[in-house]
Amino acid sequence: MSDQCLFCGIVAGDLPSVRVAEDDSTYAFMDISPASDGHLLVVPKRHSKDLLEIEAEDLAAVSVAAQRIAKAAVGVLGADGVNLLNCCGADAWQTVFHFHLHVIPRYADKAKERLVLPWTPGVPGDTDAIADWGKRLSAALD
Amino acid sequence: MSDQCLFCGIVAGDLPSVRVAEDDSTYAFMDISPASDGHLLVVPKRHSKDLLEIEAEDLAAVSVAAQRIAKAAVGVLGADGVNLLNCCGADAWQTVFHFHLHVIPRYADKAKERLVLPWTPGVPGDTDAIADWGKRLSAALD
Repeated sequence: MSDQCLFCGIVAGDLPSVRVAEDDSTYAFMDISPASDGHLLVVPKRHSKDLLEIEAEDLAAVSVAAQRIAKAAVGVLGADGVNLLNCCGADAWQTVFHFHLHVIPRYADKAKERLVLPWTPGVPGDTDAIADWGKRLSAALD
Repeated sequence: MSDQCLFCGIVAGDLPSVRVAEDDSTYAFMDISPASDGHLLVVPKRHSKDLLEIEAEDLAAVSVAAQRIAKAAVGVLGADGVNLLNCCGADAWQTVFHFHLHVIPRYADKAKERLVLPWTPGVPGDTDAIADWGKRLSAALD
């Protein structure tokens, strides 16, 4: 636990949250600035800064908890789809530096949404560049 | 495997892809319409339509593989951050119906990005609505 961490404070119960679910290693609570109706966050109870630092077992637990909650969002809130989003680093719009996975219900009725994510790449891919990125990543991972 | 599934065809090697990494249960390859330099996808080898259907063990494996690749994107491609994104359902912008987790490197130099994700909710949260969503989800999950 980090004394200065907002989400550690929430997990510990020292700061308020609207709790949705928890298990031994994860805690889920409502986002206070929801991008859509029912937007919530799943965090590991054990502090880690971001995707680069979180223990693999905590990441797996958070992901599986998010799936369970996504199913509930569809079943209970009537969502028509769900986005999972993690932001790692300030340049990826991370603002609280305790790993968190956003669970963002989506609706055919867009009036329930405040953050729309247009998933329509505006530029065709450059096949040479794509092959180069793949080669460099692959070399580091094989 | 689904005969009509694009990503099953890629995993099987029947369709081309720029392979980045793979293990027993996951396969990672470059996105052909990248939202940023180095944008790639991680999929389970075993077919599942989306987040609601994927086996928990496959989801955990995909998540941990994505973490490993995100670290490579920072180390090898010089990314300053990373987004993980899953789109579940057409209303959440899913277009290929084989579960996939986007790994989207982010850069302080925004010229490397084509899909910018503004993460600044435009409307303050409605605390009563938030509490209600949380209560309904929690009741389904406890």
